[in-house]
Amino acid sequence: MTSPADPSPTAVRLEVRSAALRVDDGPHRSAPQLQVLLVRSADSQGWALPGGPIDGATDIADTALTSLREQADVAAVAHLEQLEVFSAPHRVPGVRTVASTYLGLVRPQTPAREAQWTPARGAQWHDVEAVPPLIADHAAIVAAAHHRLAGKLSYTNIAFALAPSEFPMSELSGIYCAALGYPVDTTNLLRILSRRAVITATGGVRRTRGGGRPPALYRFTDTSLRVTDEFATLRPPM
Amino acid sequence: MTSPADPSPTAVRLEVRSAALRVDDGPHRSAPQLQVLLVRSADSQGWALPGGPIDGATDIADTALTSLREQADVAAVAHLEQLEVFSAPHRVPGVRTVASTYLGLVRPQTPAREAQWTPARGAQWHDVEAVPPLIADHAAIVAAAHHRLAGKLSYTNIAFALAPSEFPMSELSGIYCAALGYPVDTTNLLRILSRRAVITATGGVRRTRGGGRPPALYRFTDTSLRVTDEFATLRPPM
Repeated sequence: MTSPADPSPTAVRLEVRSAALRVDDGPHRSAPQLQVLLVRSADSQGWALPGGPIDGATDIADTALTSLREQADVAAVAHLEQLEVFSAPHRVPGVRTVASTYLGLVRPQTPAREAQWTPARGAQWHDVEAVPPLIADHAAIVAAAHHRLAGKLSYTNIAFALAPSEFPMSELSGIYCAALGYPVDTTNLLRILSRRAVITATGGVRRTRGGGRPPALYRFTDTSLRVTDEFATLRPPM
Repeated sequence: MTSPADPSPTAVRLEVRSAALRVDDGPHRSAPQLQVLLVRSADSQGWALPGGPIDGATDIADTALTSLREQADVAAVAHLEQLEVFSAPHRVPGVRTVASTYLGLVRPQTPAREAQWTPARGAQWHDVEAVPPLIADHAAIVAAAHHRLAGKLSYTNIAFALAPSEFPMSELSGIYCAALGYPVDTTNLLRILSRRAVITATGGVRRTRGGGRPPALYRFTDTSLRVTDEFATLRPPM
C-alpha cells in the first residue's frame, strides 16, 4: 500500500459492461422468457455484453447507456443500476481490465410487441437459459444481473421496468415467472402487490376477440425503484 | 465508442476507498453515535477515507481490507459490501481517478468497549454527524455508505455487523437509533426482529451491579446478510 492520498498511476484499464435484460413473449413461445442483450465481438471471438472502455471525461452510467444505444439500438432503458465491479486480475488477457458493470431492464415493445427488432452490428437478444459462449467473465456478469433481479423482485417494485405500461395480471405473473425461473400464482401475486400498493387497477379491461370476461388491467404505481416491505417501525417519525 | 471487444487503454486511474462505520457508545457519551474511520492524508491536505490505488494483481476487496488494516489497524470487518463507483471526471485533480468504494461495518470493541484505540498513522474514528473537511468527494462516499446502511436496516439483518455478539435490547435499539438518526422504540424493535427470526434470545441475562431485573440477552440469528422481508409468494417452491 502507498499513501492513501497520493495514489500513483497503475496499469489498470477500466471498462463498462451492461447486462440488459427483458422478458420476451413472442408469438412463437409457449411461455415468456428472460433474455439478455448480446453483441458480436469485433474480432469474432464470440458474444459479449455491450460496453467498452471508460474514457477520461464521460460519466460511467452515460457510457453504459451510450454503448447500449450505439452497439445494439437500445434507446430506452427503464431501470439501470450498478452491479459489482468485476476485477479478477486475469479476467481479460494482457493489461488488467476492471469492469464497472450495470443491470439494465428494458420494457417489452408494447403495444406492437411483435414489431421487428432491428439490431445494430449483430446485436441480439438471447434467452438467459441458453446463452451462447461469452468472452472473458461475461457469463458471470449475466448471472450477477439475473441474481440481482430475482432478489429485488422479492422486496422491491423492480418489475415495473420489465412490464408494459398496462397489463392483465396473467401477463405480469408470466413476467415474474420468466425472471424467477419458477411458477408464480397469479392470484397470490395480485394479493401481495395490491396490498403493498405496488400495482394499481387502471379501471380498464383488455378487449379480446374471444368470449369470456375481459381481464382487468393494472399498472405499476411507481416507475422508480422502491423497497416495498420496509419494517414500519424503522421508518422515520412523521 | 470503440468496438466492444477490444478496448484501448485509457488514461484512467483506479482506486479503492472504504467508508468503515461503527457505533460508539463510550462512557463520555449521552447516546451512542455512528462513526466513520478517517485517515490523515500523507500531504496533510485533510482527512481521507482509507484506501489507495488498485494494482495489477490484487483483488479489490482484499485491497480495501488491506488498507483498513495497514492505514488504520482495523483488522476485523464484520460486513463489507460494494457501494457505487465514484467516477465524476474531475473528482480528483489531474489524471481521471475512478473509485471503487466499499461500506465496511465494524463491531464495537466488546467486552472491553472502553479499551484504548491505537490508531496507525493518525487514523481516527469521527462521528458521522461531525466529520471534518474531507478531500475530493470522500464526504459523498460517507453519505452513500450511511444511506446504504440506513436503507438496509429496514429490510435486512445488517445490524448484526454493528452489534456485539450478545446484547440487551436497549443496547440494540441504541445502535439502530445511532445508525438511523432518530429514536427507535425498543419494544417494537424486539417484536419485529423476533417475529422475523432476525434475533434470538440467548437464554442469558446481563448481570448488573445495580438493583432491578437484569435484562435478557439476545444475539443475531445469522451473521451474514439476509433479506428479512421477502414476499413469501415469490420464494421458490419447496
